[in-house]
Parts: sequence; structure tokens; C-alpha cells
Amino acid sequence: MSNAPYDVHEVRKDFPILSRTVHGKPLVYLDNGASAQKPRQVIEAVTRAYSEEYANVHRGLHFLSNLATDKYEAVRETIRAFLGAAKPEEILFTTGSTMGLNLVSYAWAAPRLQAGDEIVLSVMEHHANIVPWHFLRERQGVVLKWVEPAADGSLDPQAVIDAIGPKTKLVAITHMSNVTGTVVDVKAICAAARAKGVATVIDGSQAAVHMPVDVQDIGCDFYAITGHKLYGPSASGALYVRAERYAQMRPFMGGGDMIREVGRDEITYNDAPHKFEAGTPGIVQMIGLGAALDYMTGLGMDAIAAHEHDLRDYAQARLSGLNWLQIQGTAPGKGAIFSFTLEGAGHPHDISTVVDRKGVAVRAGHHCAQPLMEHMGVSATCRASFALYNTREEVDVLVDALETCHKLFS
Amino acid sequence: MSNAPYDVHEVRKDFPILSRTVHGKPLVYLDNGASAQKPRQVIEAVTRAYSEEYANVHRGLHFLSNLATDKYEAVRETIRAFLGAAKPEEILFTTGSTMGLNLVSYAWAAPRLQAGDEIVLSVMEHHANIVPWHFLRERQGVVLKWVEPAADGSLDPQAVIDAIGPKTKLVAITHMSNVTGTVVDVKAICAAARAKGVATVIDGSQAAVHMPVDVQDIGCDFYAITGHKLYGPSASGALYVRAERYAQMRPFMGGGDMIREVGRDEITYNDAPHKFEAGTPGIVQMIGLGAALDYMTGLGMDAIAAHEHDLRDYAQARLSGLNWLQIQGTAPGKGAIFSFTLEGAGHPHDISTVVDRKGVAVRAGHHCAQPLMEHMGVSATCRASFALYNTREEVDVLVDALETCHKLFS
Repeated sequence: MSNAPYDVHEVRKDFPILSRTVHGKPLVYLDNGASAQKPRQVIEAVTRAYSEEYANVHRGLHFLSNLATDKYEAVRETIRAFLGAAKPEEILFTTGSTMGLNLVSYAWAAPRLQAGDEIVLSVMEHHANIVPWHFLRERQGVVLKWVEPAADGSLDPQAVIDAIGPKTKLVAITHMSNVTGTVVDVKAICAAARAKGVATVIDGSQAAVHMPVDVQDIGCDFYAITGHKLYGPSASGALYVRAERYAQMRPFMGGGDMIREVGRDEITYNDAPHKFEAGTPGIVQMIGLGAALDYMTGLGMDAIAAHEHDLRDYAQARLSGLNWLQIQGTAPGKGAIFSFTLEGAGHPHDISTVVDRKGVAVRAGHHCAQPLMEHMGVSATCRASFALYNTREEVDVLVDALETCHKLFS
Repeated sequence: MSNAPYDVHEVRKDFPILSRTVHGKPLVYLDNGASAQKPRQVIEAVTRAYSEEYANVHRGLHFLSNLATDKYEAVRETIRAFLGAAKPEEILFTTGSTMGLNLVSYAWAAPRLQAGDEIVLSVMEHHANIVPWHFLRERQGVVLKWVEPAADGSLDPQAVIDAIGPKTKLVAITHMSNVTGTVVDVKAICAAARAKGVATVIDGSQAAVHMPVDVQDIGCDFYAITGHKLYGPSASGALYVRAERYAQMRPFMGGGDMIREVGRDEITYNDAPHKFEAGTPGIVQMIGLGAALDYMTGLGMDAIAAHEHDLRDYAQARLSGLNWLQIQGTAPGKGAIFSFTLEGAGHPHDISTVVDRKGVAVRAGHHCAQPLMEHMGVSATCRASFALYNTREEVDVLVDALETCHKLFS
């Protein structure tokens, strides 16, 4: 393809694991929605950090501690730029979106929401953007108000806005469904919520991987990302917090770095962001995440999106040709994530196991989105989720494997 | 030394960073209390995991996910054996002691303790074992009861036991001070607390690095360790939970993996340990921690302790010869951690900066232990903390550097 945004075969050489085999077949890794593979630039950054530049951060004055601190803190600016935040202080380092969303729940929502207050969320949310709010329902009587997607998997922003009532204190919405790839118009939702004085938290775990994100343009209060889905190390991540929200937040975890003075019967806290980053952080993980974001912006987020849109269209066309396969979610502008079931075939788990023998890694299950499964009337799906390094040829291998599967079960 | 427990110069070859220089001098890394360096066995385990064996865990059925899950879950048994726990289910994976101690505070203490209930803790605690209890004081009126160490830095277990009153619900005590190296008789404390029906949480962040630990012999309810101090990756760690305590704990973080069923207005949770491990965990960090613990047990915890006792005695003898230097804490049986101040010298920060020019990395500050600093009547100390790879020769380099410093400031 002459108009390809980058040479995907060159890009693939950066990812060591992509040259391995599984069951004697070349690996076709289509489980990127669960976690992405890592380029050597990230692996080398991690190795270098441990082999040459490691020490604890912030609290030392010696050479290695200063060096590690500089490398670590520089990632705050990398993430600020990646998300389009106004200042680096608005970036909190986390271990992923689960921690980020729990931080919003414990630090901002728990001390503010009263019994009867409402949180509006969609039925498409990942459990990470559901369970922290269930805690508030169980523990302090907060009410969860659910908004359903349309039949094609799209989510009408007006339906979310209409669900905001006088008792609504927070809207918690995904930017991209991890099951159907549906992209949500979070900008429209955040503008309406803001006009009504309601806070917004956006789960960007999937969206930030696949498209350019600008939190100021979106206008949200909180935006969570997960490093291991962004080609970075496990246990890395970040939470964007609009600066003015910090004054409404109490600390989440307690320990070193987040305090100013600790006495026996009194305590004062550090300023944000450190106030919300207790103890020794994931130093090397965050340095690795910085390398991962540099890698992505090196390719260009628009180029990644263009490459994945091509994959999405090609996969959509090929999968649509299988009249015994049902795709769940075909919203316009969706990302390259395909959930499907096979007519007459066994459980999605069986399908996953069969295609695995062909080297194809797909996920099967509820994808941590049980309310959506219930809404769609299925207990589980298979999911093929694409990344910047996947190819049309891999779509073909998937389709061949599914055809084998179909023959086996019919 | 013919009776050396292992050849430390051979061991040093396993740690790539130890061969580097700082300011043109060989690195003498004595900041191990803040974080330890990593052997190549750990770095290689991390590299292998990302390069050859990476996928998300638990929720997949494909080859790589099963492989990663097997490697990751095997570490639970490694940690069980390292800590002497009864069963692997008693090991929760964390990002370090800070998260582990906060987990105890949020999951066990917060829903159980009432206004006026007491937590007994020592003045020697690290902020990670103070701030989570301050939260309960600030938020729900829990009372903190402080026990002071003796003049030599030792902590009389009877003083802790005597502080337990009818309203005491929890005793939170360090196993080894990160400032003075004092080892606490936590077994005596836990036995007495248990007899009175009081729960015990032990901060093992330092102790587990320097001596064999057996949580069943200690008899505690909770025991927290930090992976990056145990020669493992940053953002790794574990919390031991005595199995019978699980029934008293509510979830801490919410998200994937920790649930059984998520509905719109009801939720049920997974069994422990997964109930307390929300979202994608630190997969590769925990695999790296497994390699680190294998490395330590390969040398032998008794051998490591013997090597460090030799270093402690040698450092004690050499530092005691400097009549312008005050060692803080000389409790019998202490670990190889030395905090000190210099008579007539500037702030410990200045000392740290001067010895850094000689290649010596020591820490200066309050070491996240402000109540202890206040008790000792100092605002800060310098701290040289030793590891399994340090040598007597490095003690000599430290002493030479301190002598330079003394001349400079006097």
C-alpha cells in the first residue's frame, strides 16, 4: 500500500515477541485490548534503568538518585504532552487505569458524595469503571444510573446528558469500549456535565492507545490511562486531574513522599501531584512508559489511527463475509476491536482454544464488562483487538482459523 | 576471610550497576535501605518476560496468556516459601509495603474501627506504617498510641504490650527500623496481642531483606514486604494475610479479576487472594521479584545475614573510631543500617553531597521517619545502609570520605 502511514513490517521488527512461534505457527497476537506487546525501545529503557541508572527517587541527594529522579520526573512532561494537559502537575503516576479510577473514587468521590447522590455511567463500562462506584453504592448509598448503548453499540451522548439529574455528582464514561470498539463523544458529554456543575471521569484505557487524545479539548476532570496497553511496562499508568479538582481531593494512599510533616497527633500533606503518590513509585515502569509514549508519538498518533482504521475496515469486510459469525458492535468510527460469536459453535472459550492452535491469540470471556454482556444477551464473546503492529495478513490468518473452527463445530 | 558465607566479589559480578563509576570513582552504593540494586538474574527475567513470554494473565486462554499466568502465579508460592506462610492464598501481590499497609488500613481496619478505638504503634515507624493510621484518626476518630524506643534505639516488646488496652484493635510495628537498624521482637508482641484478641501488622520492608522471616513463627496477622528493596523490580511487593483475617476484610481496589458477578445494582466478589488484587497486576514485576527471591534463597538468608553482620560489626568498629561522629541507634542485634550526624558539620544533606563526590551513595534526610527524628532530637541524619553485595573495603571508602568531610567542615 503506497499510502500506508508507516511500514508496518519495519515496525514489527521493533517488537521481539512478534517473531516467535506458538504451537509451531507464527504468533498472530490479537489480544491487544488486554495488553500490548513491547518494543525493544521500552525493554532497553527498562534494562538500562536497572543496569546503569537505578536508585530510589526524590529522597536522595547522591548522583544515581538524582539521575533516576530526572529520568522519572521527565515522564510527567511526556504524559502531559501525550494527553494535552495544561501542566505536568496535572499528571498523577499510577499503576494503571484501575488504580487511577479507584483514586478518583477514594480521593474525590468518597468524601463528597452523600446517600442518594447519583453517578451516571454507561452499560459499556469496563469493571474498572464500575466497581469503584459500586463501592460507593454499597458503603454510602450512592445511586448508579445506567445509560444503554444503541443496537449497533453506539452511545448517544444526549442519552448520557439526559440522565444527568439534580442529584448527579459524577459522570463516569469510557472513551472507547474494550468490547465493541465504540468511540464515545466524550467532549459533548463533558461540556454538558460541566455546564451543570457535574464532574466527569473518562476511562481512556483503550482510546489513548488508538487515537490522539486532548484532555483540554475533551474538557474532562479526570482521564485514566493504562501503561501496559500503551506498549509500556506492566504496573505503569497515569491519571490526568484538572488542576482545580485537587483542592477537592483528600489523599488516597498514605506513606512517604506524600506528606509535609508527620507528628504523633497531626499531619500535613505535600502538594499535588506528590500528595497522591505515596511511597516509592514504579520508577522503572514509568521510565519505560515514557519510552513507549515516545515510540508512539515517533510513529505519530494520527498515523497509528490511520493504520488501525485500515485494519478495522479490512477486518470488518472479511468478518462480514462469514455468514455464521455475528459481530457485536458496528458503531460508525469504531476502533479496531471486534467482539463476535459463532453460530452453532461452542462457547467462545472453545473458539479461542481452536484458533490458538493456529498461532492466533484472541481473548474469550466477558472482557470485564458483564453489564454489557447482559445487555447484548450473551454470556461471553471472542474478541480480536488490533494494535499498531498488526497487518492485513494477520486478519487473513484469523479468518482462516475461524473457518477451521466453524467446520469443526458445525 | 575463609569463613565467609559466600564470595562477595563473585556475587558483585551479578549486579551490573556495581561496576559503574560515579564522578570518576567506583560506585560505593550504601543507599540500600531506600532501594537495592538488581542482579542480572532479575533483569534477565524481566527482559525475557517482555521479549518472549508476555501477555495479560488470568483472563486469557491462549498460549502466551497461559504461559504468563503460570510464571506469574508461581511467584505466589515463591513468596509463600520465603515468608513461611501456610498457603499461597495468604500472599497478596502488591506494589510494595506502602500499598500493603494501606490495604490493611482500607480493607481491614477502616470498616471495623470506631471512634475511640486505638492503634498501638512505635515512634520508630516509617511513614508508610504511620500515615494510613493517621487517615483513620482524621476520618473516623481512631486514637494513635505511641511507644518510644530506649536511648540505644532498642524497642522493649513489653512496652508495646503494656500499651495494649481494652480499646486497642491493632498493633502496627516495624520488624526492623529503616533508620537505626533496630530489630524488634515482634514474636513476643504478636503472641501477647493475639492473647488479647488484638490484630497485628508488621512492616517487614527492611527485615525481610536482611534476615530469615517466618510469619507463622512470628504469629502476625499481616506482614508487608517491598520488592524493590529485596533486589526485585520497582512496583513489586507482597502482603501476607493470615487466612482467617480474610473474612473480616472488604475489597480495597475495585476492577477486573476481583469480582465474581457485576450487575447494575448488585455485585459479588471473587475469593481471596484475587478479591484483593484488582485489575491487571504487575505481571512482569512479580516475575522479577520471584527471580530476586530465588537469588536470595540461592545464597541463603542465613548466609546473607552472616555476611551483613560482619559488615555491621566492621562498620560499627570503624565509625566508632571517629570521635566527631554520632551513631544513632546501637541496639544489640541490629541490622547493618547506620544513621549518623557529624559534630560541627553542616546539614546531613551537605555531608551526603560531599561523600557523593567520592562515589559513595548515602542518604540524608528524615528517612520517612519524622516522629523518630523528633524523638532523637535531630531534623535529619545521614544513613549508610548495607546489602548482601557490600564489602569491608566499601566501609573503608565511606570512612575515608567522611574524614574528608570532617576536615572540610571543621
